[in-house]
Amino acid sequence: MAGLSFRLAGPPDWAAIWPIWHSVVAAGDTYTWAPDTSEEQARALWMPPPPAVTVVAERDGSVVATALLKPVQPGLGDHVANAGFMVDPVAAGGGIGRALAEFVLDEARRRGYRAMQFSAVVAANVRAVGLWESLGFEIIGTVPEAFRHPTAGLVGLHVMHRSL
Amino acid sequence: MAGLSFRLAGPPDWAAIWPIWHSVVAAGDTYTWAPDTSEEQARALWMPPPPAVTVVAERDGSVVATALLKPVQPGLGDHVANAGFMVDPVAAGGGIGRALAEFVLDEARRRGYRAMQFSAVVAANVRAVGLWESLGFEIIGTVPEAFRHPTAGLVGLHVMHRSL
Repeated sequence: MAGLSFRLAGPPDWAAIWPIWHSVVAAGDTYTWAPDTSEEQARALWMPPPPAVTVVAERDGSVVATALLKPVQPGLGDHVANAGFMVDPVAAGGGIGRALAEFVLDEARRRGYRAMQFSAVVAANVRAVGLWESLGFEIIGTVPEAFRHPTAGLVGLHVMHRSL
Repeated sequence: MAGLSFRLAGPPDWAAIWPIWHSVVAAGDTYTWAPDTSEEQARALWMPPPPAVTVVAERDGSVVATALLKPVQPGLGDHVANAGFMVDPVAAGGGIGRALAEFVLDEARRRGYRAMQFSAVVAANVRAVGLWESLGFEIIGTVPEAFRHPTAGLVGLHVMHRSL
């Protein structure tokens, strides 16, 4: 995607990640984290120690999206990756999410993960579900009424998966 | 079950929980945690801060099993519980696991959870899968090849669920 670059993030990137993180989580319609999650809590959640890695997408020198790649389980399940993605709402809709996801899928392969699993995709988030399906993910199952959506009420959370 | 009692655990109970926890996790066939998980790591995993609660089952004054009850998701998904169960291998097979599970299901209801979800039930652990099904849980889906079993190789992890 023209003008877009991706790299692993370090501690100095948090200042640019936090406004995006906060915008996405405060909306309360895509992630289970409490909408009022503090910056300190958010940083611990989004920039955990290795083997997790945090990724940023930059355009014209500005961070426009971020991702977290980590094992979905510790120990005997750590060959399956988990990832989360957040695009700056101001920049969303232009293909940044897809390009970032493709980068993270490649990064997961490079790190030796054999598959990727999402454990809590909000069923009402049809754009995200469609994006993941177009990238080869399948819905393995749906936990009913597992998410309190701000306008849709209790909605399901999909478990999605693809091999790498 | 005759002679068996259940209660919430506190910090002094850890000394009795740890040998059970270690025996179960070191076997490497039912939990994803690394078989060599240290005592310090184990304590943080099994006795996390509220709203999580740790439970012990006692018989003749000795701890013979333990459980962890917590939200499966934070924030907007914290109305669904998650639980883990461990029975002392020396005492296993006499119905302790079922009795402990029934206590924890009641405790979850008392705490206002609307459902319970297990996110990683080892598919090869047919006794556990059968117990959960007999207690009203359904397999929502199975993440393929998500667990490195010590003898069966790569096996699936079931996501299981029941309403409360």
